[in-house]
Amino acid sequence: MANKDVREQLLDAATALFAEQGIASTTVAEIASRIGVTSAMVHYYFKTRDHLLDTIIEERVERFIAYVWDPITGSDADPFTMVKDLVIRIIKASDIMPWLPPLWIREIVNEGGLLREKMLQHIPVEKPKQFGKCIAAAQKQGIVNPDIDPRWLWMSIIGLTMLPLAAAKIWNRVPTLVDLNKDDLARHVIALLMHGLTNPSFTPT
Amino acid sequence: MANKDVREQLLDAATALFAEQGIASTTVAEIASRIGVTSAMVHYYFKTRDHLLDTIIEERVERFIAYVWDPITGSDADPFTMVKDLVIRIIKASDIMPWLPPLWIREIVNEGGLLREKMLQHIPVEKPKQFGKCIAAAQKQGIVNPDIDPRWLWMSIIGLTMLPLAAAKIWNRVPTLVDLNKDDLARHVIALLMHGLTNPSFTPT
Repeated sequence: MANKDVREQLLDAATALFAEQGIASTTVAEIASRIGVTSAMVHYYFKTRDHLLDTIIEERVERFIAYVWDPITGSDADPFTMVKDLVIRIIKASDIMPWLPPLWIREIVNEGGLLREKMLQHIPVEKPKQFGKCIAAAQKQGIVNPDIDPRWLWMSIIGLTMLPLAAAKIWNRVPTLVDLNKDDLARHVIALLMHGLTNPSFTPT
Repeated sequence: MANKDVREQLLDAATALFAEQGIASTTVAEIASRIGVTSAMVHYYFKTRDHLLDTIIEERVERFIAYVWDPITGSDADPFTMVKDLVIRIIKASDIMPWLPPLWIREIVNEGGLLREKMLQHIPVEKPKQFGKCIAAAQKQGIVNPDIDPRWLWMSIIGLTMLPLAAAKIWNRVPTLVDLNKDDLARHVIALLMHGLTNPSFTPT
């Protein structure tokens, strides 16, 4: 293995183990043994446990955030397309990084989560603001529901996608979710966000 | 203190500590000391740690679930009122049981969560099914958006409410969420579920 491979593989092993069993319950020896190297190798590449966590935020979580948020550029975007594409990107990113939603729930949303403080310093402040501004502008033009709150909307999208994705391994054990997949989730969430429960073609008689 | 009080207070202390720091990180001694009794008292009322967890599911989590789901009775309900009232009950229940959303995320949604297996045996199978049937019936009548998935909808409502409620303590540290409260959340979620992003009074020119 080339050196770069070992480093990347250690990050892969760490993110997978952290998502499965939590950061606090995962030892350096477990991370090393998953790819067949010794603990010394983990220390060689990442010095301390804290530095390993920083690296995961900076190289892996940031990659997810950039993939999801970077295409949002400002208030001239069509709000419906912007929202739809955001949902599609979150669900697609979870194919490439299946460890992300469970890790995010466990170590960022949870009180005492070991990435929470680090993450609060890395939240992309500008993008959610631009997103909110685009929605607010479309409300002023009368084309977006005036009763939704542009400040809550991105959190709603996270809840509609990341929560079910974090629990994806037990969908087949939850009544009503058996046999559903990510494509079903994407279609449903987009439909809900576009028109809510209201049938857009329904005319009361 | 009467005996019943001690037992109830131990359950209060346990749920609060489990929500804050996780079940695995909480000792019996901590639970006891929070209400000023000895560990022996915890063992007296709950025998084993496992029995304490069973009791929390049966007496506390079940109370939340019953409060939230019991009013849903069947397919004759108006789907819009049913959804709106479900959201209101979840948010209201979190006032009475603020430990519930973080505990639920930490120990049920999380892989390896220590209440997950116990909870999977207590999921109210019938209520989400009745809920789904009511939505599906309203879709057939043409009054509910045909593109949403009745099987996913209750999970969406959980994601829209429980996820932000679980993170309520850090709202004031997240850009765009500063100064928002639970009433804002309820209004926003209901508006989103009723009409999505579409302005119901918008007529394209």
